[in-house]
Amino acid sequence: MPKYPRLADRLNYLSPSVFEKFLPKMREKGADLVKLHIGDSYLPPVYSLPVDDPFIKKFPYFNRYPNTVGTAELRQALSRKIQEDNQLPGEVDNIMMTAGAANALNVIAMGMINPGEEVLILAPFWPFFRGMVRLAEGEPVEAPFYTELYDNPELDIKAYLNQFITDKTVALYLNTPNNPSGKVLNRAQLQQIREVVEEHNLWLISDEAYDGMTFDNREHISIGSFPELFDRTLTVFTFSKVYMFAGLRLGYMVANAGVIRNLNKILVHELYSPSAMAQYMMIEPVERRHEWGPDFLAHTHELRDIVSKNLEIPHHVPEGAYYLFFSVSHLLENRSFQELVNDCLEIGVSVAPGNDFGPVYDEYIRICFAGESPERLRIAVERLNKVLQPA
Amino acid sequence: MPKYPRLADRLNYLSPSVFEKFLPKMREKGADLVKLHIGDSYLPPVYSLPVDDPFIKKFPYFNRYPNTVGTAELRQALSRKIQEDNQLPGEVDNIMMTAGAANALNVIAMGMINPGEEVLILAPFWPFFRGMVRLAEGEPVEAPFYTELYDNPELDIKAYLNQFITDKTVALYLNTPNNPSGKVLNRAQLQQIREVVEEHNLWLISDEAYDGMTFDNREHISIGSFPELFDRTLTVFTFSKVYMFAGLRLGYMVANAGVIRNLNKILVHELYSPSAMAQYMMIEPVERRHEWGPDFLAHTHELRDIVSKNLEIPHHVPEGAYYLFFSVSHLLENRSFQELVNDCLEIGVSVAPGNDFGPVYDEYIRICFAGESPERLRIAVERLNKVLQPA
Repeated sequence: MPKYPRLADRLNYLSPSVFEKFLPKMREKGADLVKLHIGDSYLPPVYSLPVDDPFIKKFPYFNRYPNTVGTAELRQALSRKIQEDNQLPGEVDNIMMTAGAANALNVIAMGMINPGEEVLILAPFWPFFRGMVRLAEGEPVEAPFYTELYDNPELDIKAYLNQFITDKTVALYLNTPNNPSGKVLNRAQLQQIREVVEEHNLWLISDEAYDGMTFDNREHISIGSFPELFDRTLTVFTFSKVYMFAGLRLGYMVANAGVIRNLNKILVHELYSPSAMAQYMMIEPVERRHEWGPDFLAHTHELRDIVSKNLEIPHHVPEGAYYLFFSVSHLLENRSFQELVNDCLEIGVSVAPGNDFGPVYDEYIRICFAGESPERLRIAVERLNKVLQPA
Repeated sequence: MPKYPRLADRLNYLSPSVFEKFLPKMREKGADLVKLHIGDSYLPPVYSLPVDDPFIKKFPYFNRYPNTVGTAELRQALSRKIQEDNQLPGEVDNIMMTAGAANALNVIAMGMINPGEEVLILAPFWPFFRGMVRLAEGEPVEAPFYTELYDNPELDIKAYLNQFITDKTVALYLNTPNNPSGKVLNRAQLQQIREVVEEHNLWLISDEAYDGMTFDNREHISIGSFPELFDRTLTVFTFSKVYMFAGLRLGYMVANAGVIRNLNKILVHELYSPSAMAQYMMIEPVERRHEWGPDFLAHTHELRDIVSKNLEIPHHVPEGAYYLFFSVSHLLENRSFQELVNDCLEIGVSVAPGNDFGPVYDEYIRICFAGESPERLRIAVERLNKVLQPA
C-alpha cells in the first residue's frame, strides 16, 4: 500500500511549473536578464486601488505572479514563527502558501490518496474534509474521538484507534485545538497518536487552524515537533482564525521539502498560486504577532466565558478554538432535531447542526462565540436559554 | 456517455455548503438574527493593514468569509460587464468567482470529466490545462489548430476537428484570443466550432483570459453569446491580464445557473471561496474599465509593434493576447533546441519553449511582450536578433 513515504499516483502525470528547469540559469543572469518567458504585465494596475503607497513601493511585485510555492519574504517570516511558536524544525523549503487551510487540506488529499484508500478522520471534524477525501476518491473512516476524551481523559487512545485502522488506511487526520468540540490534546495524548501513526506507517495530517487559540493557560502542541514525526506530518495553518482574516483566503502547510515540491504540482494545477498581494500584506502581522496577539486571545477568552458561563444547557467548557459543541438529545422528546434548529432560528439565533461534523453527532449543535460582538452574544445566550428547554 | 448536459459523477458525493438549507430562513430573520453558525471573527484585523480607511468603511466585511459563489456587488458589476462587453446573457446567478482563470478551468475539469473521458484541446494551448484534464482523470486529445488557421484561414474547421472527436469526447477547449499564438477567431470560424459542439453534443470550455486584448480593430467575440450555445458554454475570465493583476489571483466563470451551483461544490472543497478582499477591490475597476482600459490597450498595441516590427525571425503578427509564437526549426541544423534556448538565456533573454504548448510545437518559442518595459523589450529584440540566426 502507498503509505508514508509514498504519495498518490496522480502526481506522476503532472508536470511541475513549466519554467522550473531554467531557474538556475535565470538566477545566474540576474537583473540583466530580460524576461520574456512568462505571461505577465510589467505595469502596476493603471486604475486606482485602496492600497497604501508605502506598501506598493515596498512590494512592487504585489500585482505579479508570485513563486507558486509562496513569496520568499513571507515564508522566511513563517519559518521563524513555526520554529519559535510551534517548535517545528521548518525552513523556507518546508513551507508552501495556500489559499487558506481549506486549500492546503485539499492539496494534501489530492496528493496523498489513491482511489479506495482510507483516511482515519478523528471526529467531530471540520465538515469539508470528508468531501475532500472523497474528491480524491478516498474513503473517509470516521472515529468519534474528541468528545470521547472529554468523557474519558484516560482513554487508551492507541487501542481505541486501532479498531478503525485497516490495511487500506494511509493517513490520520488530527485537528487540535478541535473545531467543533473545543478539545485541546495534551502531550501524553499526542504521544499515543504518534505511536499509532508510527506503528501503522501512516501519514499524519495535522490541521492546526486554531493554532494560538487555547484558554486557561493550556498549551497548543504541534505534533510535527516530535522529532520522529516531522517527516511524515503535514501541518496546516491559516490566517483565517487568530489573524481574523478569513476573507483573505491565505494559509500554509509545513512538511518535508520533497513532499512540498510534489504537492506544489497539485496546487499549480488547481489555482497556480495563492495571492501575491495577500502574502506581502501578512509579513508584518506575522512579525508583530506578539504585539497584537495576546490582547486578541484575552478577548476571545472573554467571549468564551460570556457564552460558556451563561448558557444553561450542559456543555464542556472549550479548551481552545471558538466553539461550543453540545448534545440536545434530551430536548428531543416532543420535537425533531430539525424543529429545534428551526426554533433557534425563529427566536433569532443561527446554529450549526451537528450531523455535518460526524455521523454520531446528529443530535448535537455547534455555536461559534467569536462571530458576534459581546452585546449580541449575550442576547443570543438569553434566547438560546429560552429555546434549549424541554418543549 | 455523460456529455452535455450531464456533469461528472464525483459531484454526487459532495455536499454543498453546510448552511445552504437554512439560508431562506436566515434571510427572513434579517439583522436581528445573531449568527452563531459560522466560524468567523466579528472583529476586523486588530493589526495595521496597508488598506485605505474608506475601503474598509465601505466594505466592512472585507475580512470575513464571503459567499462561496462570490460577493454580490462584484457579481452584479460583472453581470453588467459581460452583457455590455461580451453580449453574454449572464445574470448574477450565472457567475462564479474563482481564484484566477486557472482555478476556474480546474473546477470545470473536475466537475465535468469522468475517468477516461476525452477533452479536445485546440493547440497550441496554455500548458496547465492538459494537467488539469489529467487531474480529473480525463484524456487530453490535442489538435494543432490556431497555427493551422494562420497558414490556412479558410480551413474547413468542422471536417478538420471531426477527425479528433471520438465517442468518449465530452468537451472542447477553446482559447481566443489565443495564448501562445496570438490568433483571434472571427465569427465565421466560431460558427464552425458551434456546429462541431452541437453535432457531437459537447460541452464548450471557452477560455477568454485575454478578453479585451485584441489589436488592429479586431473584435473579441465570446462564443457563449451565440444563443444556441449559452447553456453548454463555460466562459472563463480573469483579472490577471487586462486588469494587470495576476498577483490578486481572481477570475470568474459564466455558465448556466445550475452548472454554477454544481461546480461551486468543487470550488468549496478546493478552497472554500476566493478572497473577499480581492473581490471588493475589483468592483470599481470593473465599473470604470472604459476610463482606464483604452489607454492600456493602446500601450499593449505599441509593445506588440516594438517586438513584432523589429524581430527579424519570420513570425505571424499577433492579432490578440500578448505573445509571439514562432518556429525556430530552420535554426537547428548545428544545435539542439535546448542549446538554442540556452543561447537566448546566455545573451540575456528568457523565452518559453514551445513543447509545453502542445506536442507538435517542440521547435517553437513563445515570447511575451507585456512583461518588460519598452526600453528592455528593445534590448531583448536586439539580443534575440543576434541569437536567432543560423549557428
